[in-house]
Amino acid sequence: MKTVIISTLLTFVIFFSCKKEPEAPRPSKRQIIDLTHEFSEETVYWVTAKEFEMDVVAEGHTDHGYYYAANNFTTAEHGGTHIDAPIHFAANKQYVNEIPLEKLIGSAIKVDVSELALENPDYLIRIEDFTNWEKKNSMQIPDGSIVLLETGFSKYYPDKKKYLGTDKRGPEAVKLLHFPGLSPEAAKWLVENRNINSIGLDTPSIDYGQSNFFKAHVILLSENIPAFENLTNLDKLPSKGFDVVALPMKIKGGSGAPLRIVAFVND
Amino acid sequence: MKTVIISTLLTFVIFFSCKKEPEAPRPSKRQIIDLTHEFSEETVYWVTAKEFEMDVVAEGHTDHGYYYAANNFTTAEHGGTHIDAPIHFAANKQYVNEIPLEKLIGSAIKVDVSELALENPDYLIRIEDFTNWEKKNSMQIPDGSIVLLETGFSKYYPDKKKYLGTDKRGPEAVKLLHFPGLSPEAAKWLVENRNINSIGLDTPSIDYGQSNFFKAHVILLSENIPAFENLTNLDKLPSKGFDVVALPMKIKGGSGAPLRIVAFVND
Repeated sequence: MKTVIISTLLTFVIFFSCKKEPEAPRPSKRQIIDLTHEFSEETVYWVTAKEFEMDVVAEGHTDHGYYYAANNFTTAEHGGTHIDAPIHFAANKQYVNEIPLEKLIGSAIKVDVSELALENPDYLIRIEDFTNWEKKNSMQIPDGSIVLLETGFSKYYPDKKKYLGTDKRGPEAVKLLHFPGLSPEAAKWLVENRNINSIGLDTPSIDYGQSNFFKAHVILLSENIPAFENLTNLDKLPSKGFDVVALPMKIKGGSGAPLRIVAFVND
Repeated sequence: MKTVIISTLLTFVIFFSCKKEPEAPRPSKRQIIDLTHEFSEETVYWVTAKEFEMDVVAEGHTDHGYYYAANNFTTAEHGGTHIDAPIHFAANKQYVNEIPLEKLIGSAIKVDVSELALENPDYLIRIEDFTNWEKKNSMQIPDGSIVLLETGFSKYYPDKKKYLGTDKRGPEAVKLLHFPGLSPEAAKWLVENRNINSIGLDTPSIDYGQSNFFKAHVILLSENIPAFENLTNLDKLPSKGFDVVALPMKIKGGSGAPLRIVAFVND
């Protein structure tokens, strides 16, 4: 279990905001769920991207008597659990350091397509998957939502053959990629008919593995809707009624960045 | 202004947790304050550490018609706004990926020592600075607090001569470092008499520039109390009654990591 149960900041807020009603305090506990994979030599990157590399600088006791450990590391911006900034696929749009925090922090929903996606690694998430969610939950996707898409593929992580469709690397491996993603039609429907803040999923890319033109990326990022990729633990989230805090490394001029992302779920 | 005013996740929680009292809804707005410096070629690192380097992989329109930008980067774990994991100065303690999220998310206080520290770049934060905070606020530092120390030095960032005391680099520059930090006595008092979750400040190190033995590091990290360094915007925080979310990059076996840290302040 990578989750911890704690009295979060929310507990205090609930408590203080309800103090006029002391007979019914509601210091409910919320669970913090880490939606982030670790960075290591196992971290999954795009088949053409530079992988994570750590360089040990110091590790052990020093002449001065104290212990000391420190490392350097090198990575592509787009690998492991990370964010795509709008500029990644849309000229003149926001760099990662320019994304307003309001896009990355707030109320979230989850659309579970894992039943269909686990049967078909080329599955494209359809408009119908969203309208079905809305019917089932008797509401439209709320304005300002962070939308998470559960394909179930994080259970294969970091097995590249299962998760990416191939364990080969280099340009010639691109055509061997097989994993689900968001259809361009559904991306277009979302930006034209709903008002979401950001989107994320548990595969290496918001476009599916067999994509040639990365249209879902272009459609979303052109509207300054950032995308979170390679998420995990989405199976631990309900369909609605939870919050997400997604904080990327603040790289000036970055097209994306390593992301730490957590969810707050009512216990 | 690096801050944005939004209806945060907290707003929703307050609203729903108070819905039994509809005549007095309190959907108060909270301000999100980014306490993080950007990573760039200007980012301040320890004089002996590898600085941030970005390597442009792609930037421009592709043969397929879409725009594409991507970069790689290299950095020391300990530079810019970052976290010191317990293992950084304490053998067998937590790596950065092992720090429980409950240590990094929650209620915070700020101790402002900027008046004294800006007059003396070798200022050591004393036990008295904490007991004075407690007298002024008529309370002990609450159990589980994230404690932020404002020296005022972030106003010098990224001017190395003013912020670090020197713009020279290499081992011979270490003795030229001058900036305030936490005294070993006050660190010892905190771990023995109070029960804090983590600590942070707006200088390059929790130990002051002239430290030889990094005792404040050793004392805090040995108790698995992580430290946040090179913070900014602490002047925008009140002394108490705010929350912090500090999310480091999840580096397996990391002694520290780049950190994105934000505060939620009542408007």
